[in-house]
Amino acid sequence: MDEVKKEETKKILKPMKVAIVGYGNLGKGVECALQAREEFELVKIFSNRAGLKSPFGTEFELTKHVEKYAKKIDLLFLCGGSYSDIEKIGPKTIKLFNTVDSFDTHAKLEKYITSLDKIAKKSLKVAVSAGGWDPGLMSMMRLIFNSIAPEHTFANAFWGEGVSQGHSDAIRRIKGVKNAIQYTIPNKSVMKKCASKFDYVPKPTEKHGRLCYVVLEEGAEASAIKEQIINMPNYFLGYNTIVKFVSEDKLMKMQNKMYHKGYVVKNFKCSNKFATRLSFNLDIESNPYFTAEIMVMLGGAVKKLHSEKKYGAYSVFDLPLSYLSNIDRSTLLKTML
Amino acid sequence: MDEVKKEETKKILKPMKVAIVGYGNLGKGVECALQAREEFELVKIFSNRAGLKSPFGTEFELTKHVEKYAKKIDLLFLCGGSYSDIEKIGPKTIKLFNTVDSFDTHAKLEKYITSLDKIAKKSLKVAVSAGGWDPGLMSMMRLIFNSIAPEHTFANAFWGEGVSQGHSDAIRRIKGVKNAIQYTIPNKSVMKKCASKFDYVPKPTEKHGRLCYVVLEEGAEASAIKEQIINMPNYFLGYNTIVKFVSEDKLMKMQNKMYHKGYVVKNFKCSNKFATRLSFNLDIESNPYFTAEIMVMLGGAVKKLHSEKKYGAYSVFDLPLSYLSNIDRSTLLKTML
Repeated sequence: MDEVKKEETKKILKPMKVAIVGYGNLGKGVECALQAREEFELVKIFSNRAGLKSPFGTEFELTKHVEKYAKKIDLLFLCGGSYSDIEKIGPKTIKLFNTVDSFDTHAKLEKYITSLDKIAKKSLKVAVSAGGWDPGLMSMMRLIFNSIAPEHTFANAFWGEGVSQGHSDAIRRIKGVKNAIQYTIPNKSVMKKCASKFDYVPKPTEKHGRLCYVVLEEGAEASAIKEQIINMPNYFLGYNTIVKFVSEDKLMKMQNKMYHKGYVVKNFKCSNKFATRLSFNLDIESNPYFTAEIMVMLGGAVKKLHSEKKYGAYSVFDLPLSYLSNIDRSTLLKTML
Repeated sequence: MDEVKKEETKKILKPMKVAIVGYGNLGKGVECALQAREEFELVKIFSNRAGLKSPFGTEFELTKHVEKYAKKIDLLFLCGGSYSDIEKIGPKTIKLFNTVDSFDTHAKLEKYITSLDKIAKKSLKVAVSAGGWDPGLMSMMRLIFNSIAPEHTFANAFWGEGVSQGHSDAIRRIKGVKNAIQYTIPNKSVMKKCASKFDYVPKPTEKHGRLCYVVLEEGAEASAIKEQIINMPNYFLGYNTIVKFVSEDKLMKMQNKMYHKGYVVKNFKCSNKFATRLSFNLDIESNPYFTAEIMVMLGGAVKKLHSEKKYGAYSVFDLPLSYLSNIDRSTLLKTML
């Protein structure tokens, strides 16, 4: 092996120095997932606390000081709690670091990735964005299923039973609501129809039911709030929506459960003749910890892309699958193809 | 839009002139699948017959004349019946055409793709190889599942019930066997264990049973042939193998059924704590017609790669997922991510 190649190999094998920004459940999940990965070295956790250490012994630093670490850290896992966090911190941090995020406001993804791409190319960095289980893993299944025999109806996706953060937030914004949690519940008979009828297209509102648990502010009127929820356009109007009022205690306990499920199915007749069904099932006990696993996997892709100087912002649609693995391509072709 | 861009767009929208090489079930399936695709124009079917027309009106030409069409055809779907066909015709045709094949001898794939890549780069062509349902779609699932939390046991794959061509061929090579067909039958209790126990690793031989239907040559001794089958290393030894002797008529009827199934599952504890299960199910009434759909999808990837001058030989592991779709990337990010 010549010297240049040796240097290249060393670079690839050397662990990438990484940090976590935001230490809620997602950040904790990323820290856990990183323990099993030799290709990364976790050097810092950025949050609004400092001077602490995580259970794994990682030092905390204030997020506002992140820029000082530009030369000491190669990759940031952006685990900010709220959506607006990512939209603010993403375009800033990509100027100095490679990043992975699981930004999940579907309607904004294309614009966000496009704008991130411009900055990343200028700053010679790599970002992989929208990398969780949905958007992320479920999106990959949608794209693969839809690309096969694309003249047929799009694959149907179902979520749940599990908590929808977006729907929970929507309820929380109602005046008089102190706290709320919304479970998305797939309609099993519609799921079955999608898996048994060919090219079946259910109404969006009949695919899922919506079960809402609400804690009221003192003096708030339950029936008026229920009406507001049930009639909220885009979120609840037209859906089978159940609203239950509960104590704050009970809600807190619910919020500790983080399970979720996903299902993607495409059922069609190949060449208009042969029954063909593709389906993907995901069953996770922890939404944030599984999202964290996907983010860490995408961190590996960032490492490869950066070492190859392929700067820019990527979605899971833009990555060759071999970039997801920590196994070299030649071995992949031999063992997994 | 400037003139250069207009020219580029025209090039992308212009149908690619394609041909099918080999007109067995796979070739027929590709012809059917192409009917729904505006991005391709099927101009010829190469086979050992000439002067005919297909049911869709496509003209036949002798395969030995394929080189004459180098300037008239951009992409060949290689649908040769036997494995050795692809190994011979692939390296020849890639010198003059872009190609898609579903070469499926797993042990040879890495070498084949590597050698094809060298020729393709020299001849400024693009090949996508090993593109069927397995290798192909199932491989993609294996790679995705295994890349998530890779410290855990590899995903388990099951096949069937369906015919294994390789195992059927192995029986046919035995002296005294006139014809044979082998059904691979997944062991349902092992499948369930893989989906319910964490990191469960079954013995390879217990994952599938093997049901063999054999037509004997006149005078051949059934019991001796049965022994030979059951004790064949790699193929049957150690497996639950059942051998049945049938008439040629009955076997012919069986060979008309082309259904198959595939299942990939990974079941593990995320961060050693949270139950996580990923599974993919495929259920196809026609193995060759579904393989054909995958090949036509990959033809789309070839079209894009060639228009971007990204010459070489690719596996499904080397393609960004967006290359599989006939929808532009920006729309994909907006609608499927």
